[in-house]
Amino acid sequence: MRINLVGFGIIGKGFARTLLKKREWLKDKYGFEAQVVSISDITGTVSDENGLDLNQVMIDFERSGRLIDVPGSRKDKGLDAIKDVDADLLVEVTPTNVETGEPGLSHILEALKMGKHVVTSNKGPLALEFKKLKDASERYGVKLRYEASAGGAMPLINLANNILSGDEVLSIKGILNGTTNYILTRMTKEGTSFEATLREAKDLGIAESDPTYDVTGSDTACKLVILANAIMGKEASYRDVKIRGINSITPEAVALALEEGYVIKLVGEVENDELEVAPKLVPVNHPLNVDGTLNVATLRTDLAGDITVVGTGAGAKETNSAILSDILNIFRNSTG
Amino acid sequence: MRINLVGFGIIGKGFARTLLKKREWLKDKYGFEAQVVSISDITGTVSDENGLDLNQVMIDFERSGRLIDVPGSRKDKGLDAIKDVDADLLVEVTPTNVETGEPGLSHILEALKMGKHVVTSNKGPLALEFKKLKDASERYGVKLRYEASAGGAMPLINLANNILSGDEVLSIKGILNGTTNYILTRMTKEGTSFEATLREAKDLGIAESDPTYDVTGSDTACKLVILANAIMGKEASYRDVKIRGINSITPEAVALALEEGYVIKLVGEVENDELEVAPKLVPVNHPLNVDGTLNVATLRTDLAGDITVVGTGAGAKETNSAILSDILNIFRNSTG
Repeated sequence: MRINLVGFGIIGKGFARTLLKKREWLKDKYGFEAQVVSISDITGTVSDENGLDLNQVMIDFERSGRLIDVPGSRKDKGLDAIKDVDADLLVEVTPTNVETGEPGLSHILEALKMGKHVVTSNKGPLALEFKKLKDASERYGVKLRYEASAGGAMPLINLANNILSGDEVLSIKGILNGTTNYILTRMTKEGTSFEATLREAKDLGIAESDPTYDVTGSDTACKLVILANAIMGKEASYRDVKIRGINSITPEAVALALEEGYVIKLVGEVENDELEVAPKLVPVNHPLNVDGTLNVATLRTDLAGDITVVGTGAGAKETNSAILSDILNIFRNSTG
Repeated sequence: MRINLVGFGIIGKGFARTLLKKREWLKDKYGFEAQVVSISDITGTVSDENGLDLNQVMIDFERSGRLIDVPGSRKDKGLDAIKDVDADLLVEVTPTNVETGEPGLSHILEALKMGKHVVTSNKGPLALEFKKLKDASERYGVKLRYEASAGGAMPLINLANNILSGDEVLSIKGILNGTTNYILTRMTKEGTSFEATLREAKDLGIAESDPTYDVTGSDTACKLVILANAIMGKEASYRDVKIRGINSITPEAVALALEEGYVIKLVGEVENDELEVAPKLVPVNHPLNVDGTLNVATLRTDLAGDITVVGTGAGAKETNSAILSDILNIFRNSTG
């Protein structure tokens, strides 16, 4: 399988590393072999139609920090690489932009149009233009898969659509953001303020230097939209979600909740046609009460009842578990 | 799809009820239609090569309580029905026998030999003769699926084998028995003795009148063997499991653990080639600490890290979620 890789940050590099590490295992177990024929970041593209030497690219990139400085690179953008470098599948892992969905949206649409399958971790395009993308994948007869976009290593979408296939999913409720869960967990255990705990999370590298996207609930809202559309057949957009973040949670509120046997969690929930992200009281003994940076989601179904999945929401290796799972699924279905 | 149903207790009747309830939905969503052409229990068999009227059979059975008293029945055993009534698939839901695996073992082997797919919730045959059954399904070119046998509605096997396909599962650890989890949860919350709590569980219908199989850890051991073989490629048998039950857990031990921030849970664990079932200390805030009759399992993987699934371990509807999921998977793969 020939792959265009667009995006070479933490996830993109993790993808290259995962392929290198699992090359033999994937070949033995599934007869699966991947050639990454192009890699693009915001600065440029390296490509080789016979498959790049990923090890060499990683070494060269470590030295320079930009693809444009890697030997053999050129100034082409990701979109050019998708158009010009022949491949079966695009791995799109550029950063999420929740205003425009770009550049991911154009990347994905172009790849689908060219008859390439797409696997992505990019939330923006899916949270804004889910139906358009789904329709395009159907029109051009290729697969679009995005397990990694909603909940990192928690395999919620494939679980609901491919495994619980006799069940109807009636509602989805979960903690879909590790940074805010870490902050709320620490506030609960230490009695600290939101501001102090956020500073601590930044120092530890758990929160980004601009944590707005996480603490305001935007990130959770994107993931919720994707889950609602993918699993429950909704046609929701990011703009339909009622969002409240955790910035105004006080240590007093946290302490009061705990006295009554509850913890405060940033919960995303879809039920009927309502999509909401807000701080909610969760009973201490409830499966949704998971600590630290863990993510969790409960699918309420008509037969199986409540199925709860707990996993790591982010991280290069974890996200690439989902990306690889999607790729293998496409590979196994296309080879019978 | 034509189905032989063998076993008409709680699970078997639940299967008929599920098919009746979801008939239209399954047809609309997947183009799936099932005819149950025979139903057998220990007393006899009813059959109709054009598909039984499940509603009528349920009504007749309610009145008499035995299949042999249902109009049109005959004394044939399940094994006869498998041999004589033409079908594509056997649903085997007779009770687990952990000494011999019978009658399920013979039912399943006969069906595979006749070129019928098999979906089962029966732990005995799989915990005793996993390799033999797997080899037979391969030899005769049919599918054998058993999601319902290990953890009721928790879709662990399909999750690991079909979704987390890029991951290697390194260990499995879980609470796989609802009765013992209920007893231990109540002992923790109420400070009661094992004997008193077991009586309460019997009164509530949570524990069976003979709860030996649950409280000694046998049931957990069966499920653990199935998970180890199915997910980690082991060739273990029930007899390889080191088993200790919960009969000797005292209220004092429970209280002492709680003081230190732990609960006592009956945990099944497979790591390397060791399979063990024993009461273990679980930190109060750990994802494995689930209450009441809930089941839980954590798969440790090389990429995704720890993935924990919480669900209902038993129950007619929940078990039939897994049975239906297995049937649909066979159906969807056989129709492309």
